[in-house]
Amino acid sequence: MSDQRVIRPTPISGFPEWLPETRSVEQRWLDHIRAGFERYGFASVETPSVENLDVLMAKGETSKEVYTLHRVHDDGDDSEARLGLHFDLTVPFARYVAQHFNDLVFPFKRYQMQRVWRGERPQEGRYREFTQCDIDVINVDSVPLHFDAELPRIAHEVLSGLDLPAWTININNRKVLQGCYEGIGAADPMAVIRAVDKLHKIGDDGVRLILTEEAGLTSAQADTCLELARISGADRSVVDAVGKLGIRSELLSEGLEELGFVLDSLADIEGGVRADLSIARGLDYYTGTVYEAAFDDDPGYGSIVAGGRYDDLAGQFIRRRLPGVGISIGLTRIFAKLVAEGRLSGGRTCPTDVLVVVPSDERRGEALRTGALLRGRGFNTEVFHQASKVGKQVQYASKKGIPFVWFPPFGDGKPHEVKDMGTGEQYAADPGTWERPAAG
Amino acid sequence: MSDQRVIRPTPISGFPEWLPETRSVEQRWLDHIRAGFERYGFASVETPSVENLDVLMAKGETSKEVYTLHRVHDDGDDSEARLGLHFDLTVPFARYVAQHFNDLVFPFKRYQMQRVWRGERPQEGRYREFTQCDIDVINVDSVPLHFDAELPRIAHEVLSGLDLPAWTININNRKVLQGCYEGIGAADPMAVIRAVDKLHKIGDDGVRLILTEEAGLTSAQADTCLELARISGADRSVVDAVGKLGIRSELLSEGLEELGFVLDSLADIEGGVRADLSIARGLDYYTGTVYEAAFDDDPGYGSIVAGGRYDDLAGQFIRRRLPGVGISIGLTRIFAKLVAEGRLSGGRTCPTDVLVVVPSDERRGEALRTGALLRGRGFNTEVFHQASKVGKQVQYASKKGIPFVWFPPFGDGKPHEVKDMGTGEQYAADPGTWERPAAG
Repeated sequence: MSDQRVIRPTPISGFPEWLPETRSVEQRWLDHIRAGFERYGFASVETPSVENLDVLMAKGETSKEVYTLHRVHDDGDDSEARLGLHFDLTVPFARYVAQHFNDLVFPFKRYQMQRVWRGERPQEGRYREFTQCDIDVINVDSVPLHFDAELPRIAHEVLSGLDLPAWTININNRKVLQGCYEGIGAADPMAVIRAVDKLHKIGDDGVRLILTEEAGLTSAQADTCLELARISGADRSVVDAVGKLGIRSELLSEGLEELGFVLDSLADIEGGVRADLSIARGLDYYTGTVYEAAFDDDPGYGSIVAGGRYDDLAGQFIRRRLPGVGISIGLTRIFAKLVAEGRLSGGRTCPTDVLVVVPSDERRGEALRTGALLRGRGFNTEVFHQASKVGKQVQYASKKGIPFVWFPPFGDGKPHEVKDMGTGEQYAADPGTWERPAAG
Repeated sequence: MSDQRVIRPTPISGFPEWLPETRSVEQRWLDHIRAGFERYGFASVETPSVENLDVLMAKGETSKEVYTLHRVHDDGDDSEARLGLHFDLTVPFARYVAQHFNDLVFPFKRYQMQRVWRGERPQEGRYREFTQCDIDVINVDSVPLHFDAELPRIAHEVLSGLDLPAWTININNRKVLQGCYEGIGAADPMAVIRAVDKLHKIGDDGVRLILTEEAGLTSAQADTCLELARISGADRSVVDAVGKLGIRSELLSEGLEELGFVLDSLADIEGGVRADLSIARGLDYYTGTVYEAAFDDDPGYGSIVAGGRYDDLAGQFIRRRLPGVGISIGLTRIFAKLVAEGRLSGGRTCPTDVLVVVPSDERRGEALRTGALLRGRGFNTEVFHQASKVGKQVQYASKKGIPFVWFPPFGDGKPHEVKDMGTGEQYAADPGTWERPAAG
């Protein structure tokens, strides 16, 4: 026991931390997502955790959430005073593309799986530090619509492999919304977008009130906006339904053509993706296609996937037109919900396949050689850390969930044996040729 | 072109960032290190990037390097005011073990590969944000010496797979140093340790001066200290050489027994690991075995691996005795040197195996189906993002270093073809059965 003062550690609100068995599942998820992104040829990029504040603030609206860095012992060097932790991976990526413009091949397709930070008050589903898994494409001058359709397909494929409660990726197009609102004569279409974005929180009546009281719409105009927001479906019928509203606008036609192309391209996917004309991503910088996914049974938990097309983010950092489209999987938000609900399975406290018993100090060398041999053959292998009672060593394996315990010969001329902790069976085996029994 | 003001992005000193081809090598390294750690049964742990400041300061001496977090728009909620970014992974791990004590199986073996931050002035080999790869074992009451020997073996195995310039892991034991200094009558053995730690920077004469002028040693005592520091070797002869100095101290005997055990256990390793009695890790919290590796041809670049045994770090956070031993691989420090020297090879701008050509808009559907089929068979596959001239599509593959270009049939009844970009050969192939030719 230590005599000194104990600094009792306490969890820090909003900064999640997992036990090893939970972390092992998170790792499996991260590996799965990475493989899914690479399967489509996206390249890994990581950026520093910090950006200059003027880069972070280029977008403006989320500035209040930025954490800035300071040194405990400030020695007058204020070069860090302008550094902030990034709050998403899109702004750093846009900066990255602009900065390394001459060294990249376009269209540049990257994935980025990193922690981001927001100085928000923690609440359910909100964290101050969390991991996002993003894929984005940035190209010079224009981004082919191909990518607007490919990104939700990749997200769908990745999420489908994660054994989650039912979810839906909803797709919309800002041009459709803006075109409709312009077409019916709304003076400030962005104000309408921001109002409609609140639909799932405040309902029809709430939105109608904002539209008529604040956005200056007539009751009939507001009704049309709400009618538009009620349109959804998995195929081109959505485009027809919007057409039936009878609104004329060039922007609307352009948006419907884009939305139709995306829906046609995704037509082979059965379930989990559809158009929803109520999706607006109100506070974000999107200009065309937008994506937003939520859990079907808990839409109030918030979006678990979000993204869309942005036409001028990287252009803030270089005198080139560099539009992009991206989608972000909110790994921590999804994962933490499953942890909290006890829905995760298959977690392991350690990656060990085999524990090699050390029967006695004299036989420690043999145990170490056996361990090395098994490792060389690809088995994750622990050699017990000291000679002690065999029962104690087997108990250690049992507590850690190690599936096999290996017994080096207890005497010369005797065989090696291995115990299958699942079945309890123990049998003679050669460490140079042994294989795990096929799961049955 | 954008009309708005351009925020010219500039690299942030001390925060490294890599192009995709460099990042692909870093990823390969990280995968290799992780597999090496898991091969020995260590479990992954990640901790938040921040800790409460009193936890970070528990160690004291590096406090000046800590970055603290603040919010841009402070609204009077000062709950973040006491948060700092972690500057290593050992202190957070000790806190983790204390906090989750009841949920862990001991001895608890974890690896942790995360970014850490230090508010230092950047200089060669020093970063403000960098990735460390740590393995540690913490146990209740005592840690078996087994682990003191296992950790440098794992580090050796991992480093050996990275194609680095020659390096050596040097091992020493604080008890040997402290025991010797006590044995010759030094009043403040820790002051001697801190002086000897500077040996490689200031040489024999510099250390002698500190020992005699500041640490109160006689010239003869200082000579003995320097004689001890000159002892090195890969086997037990080191223990004998210290014995010949004729110093009597119980602590020294204990230290030599530990050091001898570790050296005996590593005797089968050929090169790259040895005892060096000049290694002290002066500013750290180590109490027994210490490790430090450097590049043989550039020792001044600083340590690329460091670690040792700490007996009371976790004990600061809980009323239990929780000693530990750990070793840390300075991934970014090693990697950045190789990047700077142009020594990295095999980097790729993207993970794509196959690019599927889109011959025309009419055949886009077939190209997409071919891509899906190849992906299902495990090939990382891009489908070109629009119908365009075939030469342009092949050029895109060439610029990105994609090894195979796939041509769906240009007409019904014609065969698929694949072009090997390495050999230039183009041949008929079936996307359902094609395999990469064996490297030759």
